[in-house]
Amino acid sequence: MKKHSVAACALAAVGGASMAQSSVTLFGVLDTTVQHASQAGASVNRLLGTGGNQISRLGFRGTEDLGGGLAAGFVLDMGLNVDTGAGLPTSENNQVNAPVAGTTFNRRSTLSLSSRQLGEVRVGRDFVPTYWNITVFDPFGTAGAGSAANLAQGSLTRLSTVVTGLRASNSVGYFLPAMHGFYGQAMYAVGENVSPAAAGTRNDGNYAGARLGYAAGPLNVAAAYGTTSLASGDVSTGNLGASFTAGAFKLMAQFYRDAKEQVAAPSRSRGWLVGAQIEWGQGYFPVSYSQVQDNSPGERKAVQIALGYVHNLSKRTAVYTTYSRIQNRKGAAVSGGGVPSVANATWTGLDLGIRHIF
Amino acid sequence: MKKHSVAACALAAVGGASMAQSSVTLFGVLDTTVQHASQAGASVNRLLGTGGNQISRLGFRGTEDLGGGLAAGFVLDMGLNVDTGAGLPTSENNQVNAPVAGTTFNRRSTLSLSSRQLGEVRVGRDFVPTYWNITVFDPFGTAGAGSAANLAQGSLTRLSTVVTGLRASNSVGYFLPAMHGFYGQAMYAVGENVSPAAAGTRNDGNYAGARLGYAAGPLNVAAAYGTTSLASGDVSTGNLGASFTAGAFKLMAQFYRDAKEQVAAPSRSRGWLVGAQIEWGQGYFPVSYSQVQDNSPGERKAVQIALGYVHNLSKRTAVYTTYSRIQNRKGAAVSGGGVPSVANATWTGLDLGIRHIF
Amino acid sequence: MKKHSVAACALAAVGGASMAQSSVTLFGVLDTTVQHASQAGASVNRLLGTGGNQISRLGFRGTEDLGGGLAAGFVLDMGLNVDTGAGLPTSENNQVNAPVAGTTFNRRSTLSLSSRQLGEVRVGRDFVPTYWNITVFDPFGTAGAGSAANLAQGSLTRLSTVVTGLRASNSVGYFLPAMHGFYGQAMYAVGENVSPAAAGTRNDGNYAGARLGYAAGPLNVAAAYGTTSLASGDVSTGNLGASFTAGAFKLMAQFYRDAKEQVAAPSRSRGWLVGAQIEWGQGYFPVSYSQVQDNSPGERKAVQIALGYVHNLSKRTAVYTTYSRIQNRKGAAVSGGGVPSVANATWTGLDLGIRHIF
Repeated sequence: MKKHSVAACALAAVGGASMAQSSVTLFGVLDTTVQHASQAGASVNRLLGTGGNQISRLGFRGTEDLGGGLAAGFVLDMGLNVDTGAGLPTSENNQVNAPVAGTTFNRRSTLSLSSRQLGEVRVGRDFVPTYWNITVFDPFGTAGAGSAANLAQGSLTRLSTVVTGLRASNSVGYFLPAMHGFYGQAMYAVGENVSPAAAGTRNDGNYAGARLGYAAGPLNVAAAYGTTSLASGDVSTGNLGASFTAGAFKLMAQFYRDAKEQVAAPSRSRGWLVGAQIEWGQGYFPVSYSQVQDNSPGERKAVQIALGYVHNLSKRTAVYTTYSRIQNRKGAAVSGGGVPSVANATWTGLDLGIRHIF
Repeated sequence: MKKHSVAACALAAVGGASMAQSSVTLFGVLDTTVQHASQAGASVNRLLGTGGNQISRLGFRGTEDLGGGLAAGFVLDMGLNVDTGAGLPTSENNQVNAPVAGTTFNRRSTLSLSSRQLGEVRVGRDFVPTYWNITVFDPFGTAGAGSAANLAQGSLTRLSTVVTGLRASNSVGYFLPAMHGFYGQAMYAVGENVSPAAAGTRNDGNYAGARLGYAAGPLNVAAAYGTTSLASGDVSTGNLGASFTAGAFKLMAQFYRDAKEQVAAPSRSRGWLVGAQIEWGQGYFPVSYSQVQDNSPGERKAVQIALGYVHNLSKRTAVYTTYSRIQNRKGAAVSGGGVPSVANATWTGLDLGIRHIF
Repeated sequence: MKKHSVAACALAAVGGASMAQSSVTLFGVLDTTVQHASQAGASVNRLLGTGGNQISRLGFRGTEDLGGGLAAGFVLDMGLNVDTGAGLPTSENNQVNAPVAGTTFNRRSTLSLSSRQLGEVRVGRDFVPTYWNITVFDPFGTAGAGSAANLAQGSLTRLSTVVTGLRASNSVGYFLPAMHGFYGQAMYAVGENVSPAAAGTRNDGNYAGARLGYAAGPLNVAAAYGTTSLASGDVSTGNLGASFTAGAFKLMAQFYRDAKEQVAAPSRSRGWLVGAQIEWGQGYFPVSYSQVQDNSPGERKAVQIALGYVHNLSKRTAVYTTYSRIQNRKGAAVSGGGVPSVANATWTGLDLGIRHIF
């Protein structure tokens, strides 16, 4: 997302201490969509408050220039369900999500030290490196009825069984400094288990992953790989994405695979997406075709076609609509939007929404 | 409440994007009261942190001028228990409240598009139209020991059995533009059930309601009607309120009825209130007389007399006291303030509090 | 902590009401430490997000000058687990903590009226008077592996059995005005039980305590005493602390005792600490030696030695490290950092962290 944001003014000290100028920035996105989803005759009408174009959030962030190219910074980013005013859960151990609907800074909660020459060290809860290619190279930005995550993190994948598919708690991350178009990051996160532990549980919830990319002119390309260690079997995922901008067309593609290994019956899935954002009038059309299949005996498979239009009322505010259809084949039962999943049935989703950035 | 608030300053963009000037406003009320409540010999002393004069809250809001009379706006309004620092729960399905004490934007969480000519479309969690007459035409603003809601949403009413008496989640609302003193709104909210569903549960938690009013000079009058569909039987409510300002006297009256129908044993209740806010010195006296009764065989009935004084230390800060007495008759057992209810016993509540708006 | 903070700018009114200038200040601390803790062969590596140098928080506060030396003010202070983005629980009744991981203003949620001549009345949730000496006269400020609270509120003490060791909900406090170096406060908090109640439960969760101190030039000394009434037996605690600054040395000492009385088997514990903060280069060394013992037949005893270094990158940002060792004797089993406690085993903790104030 482009970060249009609002900064608080740096003012006087409290408590008599002399102080350097500082600033805290409030930022956020509110996005709600009226969503109609149906599959095999069952349907649900919802007001989806997490967002159909960008994920709803409220955040606080700040940076401090420490001199010599060094800076400290923080981000506290709270996911919102605008439809109910509730928040979203986080995870304490990267093994299960906490059962809480109060607000938490579940999206990101990080503290950083960064250097222009040496890069950034970032600690806290953050997006995992392996998530970025799924969302950056999705014309729908993994939001709403047409999200690439419907397949890429849906029920045919191993990623649907872990809570570290998007983010990890208890993490230490490193980000490369700007280097002639190359960019990259690595993350290690822990499940905070007691050691020695029962067999297989010592690393339960640990995550390790990295991403490397190159962006220059119209081109952006990146690859990532990561593994979550779990008592129930490690889940690894790798992906590759690229975009190329030509005039009004921003073409995108991604490929991913994931696997659950070190168990009696290893399982795998793989998928890909091609799509584009096509500028038109005051907005753009996002379109995508994607598919995923697993290694089950019948090789279950799902195919998604998604088409939308985003009409910008300003740089910060847009109305949008998305139509998405998922075809389930060979026993696949991918669903969404609160509709009970039915094998081999086609799922459709329709969004009509508003998105406002502040 | 008068909205005295604080705006953050619009400053520079982040991420290199050019941006329009924007603003986020922080607002809130902290109100706490030492409350002594007693009934039938039992009593409780509490520090009530939700507020005895105005309901405690912390909020964020903003608007963006889109040109041509069009604007986008949002409100995130979090209820607070100042006595404990905890928040208040919201509802995901308008059927039950979520069991959470973490902070949520339970009071209001909305995104709007509005036009000076055509009115406002508002989506998210918001107050229901049928709530406004209860609070606007109550000299105590439905806060504290003297709240009109003690009776109007108390145990003798059908409204006490729904979570949509004050607010609804998953709602789409429409507000009339300014029209020579007329004002009005309509809301439709959904329980987000799967369809087809078990008999009677398809619309479980759906709410539909509307309000129409007229305000000019010293007069303000409004009527509202709404229904919540529930698997356990639909609950509908209608009300009518008016205020008239004459010198130091602001006279208020309201009438309401509610009913649970489409069940084996339909039940109803009705009530009314007369009261006033009387300016005096640096503050005002709120006073009210109200009663409610149901259609049970004995026609249970409760009568409340409430008297208070609000002393303004400034436009934003006040100290106040309220005395309220509820007489229960013919088997009624209305109570409050954490005291166990006892049939036919008189309840008394006494507040001594501070309210601060920011 | 020194309060370096950021103020929002006071801007225009909303809603057409004339308004006085006002301000809301955002403030906070993010502090995370990679902590390795071990005892008796078991160990845990964690990213500790509550803080190893100062406790992580996000807060809002404001004051209003009411004229004549009178002011109104509020503080909403939310504890943070930066490692997960979750919040910390509060207590509704001062008897047990609520089981919630959503964010709450658990650290402080208060509304105040204060006068330069008469002092301050403060209501809401606040730190108890008996907590301050433990943290103010601890070179580690009760944060991280070297915290004085490891012993002073650890498993050998009665305070480990109450939720009012740090803070109390439902409280009314009074603070002395500035008086030639003397300072003081008293607090009364209630458990909000119904009266009459089952034997012994009427005052369950009530807290009463006071603190009196004197600070002038290099000297600061204070004493405090408080009692929490509990159905399971009242827990009282008293403590005394002092600091003296001489050049680069800030020497600190504290003594405390607590007791559980009015039960069949009364129990007691007592402890003390000596330590210092020693300025060096761009930072300081915190060091402390402390011990605690109870009145069990064997007089269980634990001794902690802690040493750290805090390196200031700026007034707001520091990196730090702490090493702490707790020796358990005569059956004591004090532990920390998520490691299961083992009697008579030595616990060690090591922090490597970053702290950022905004």
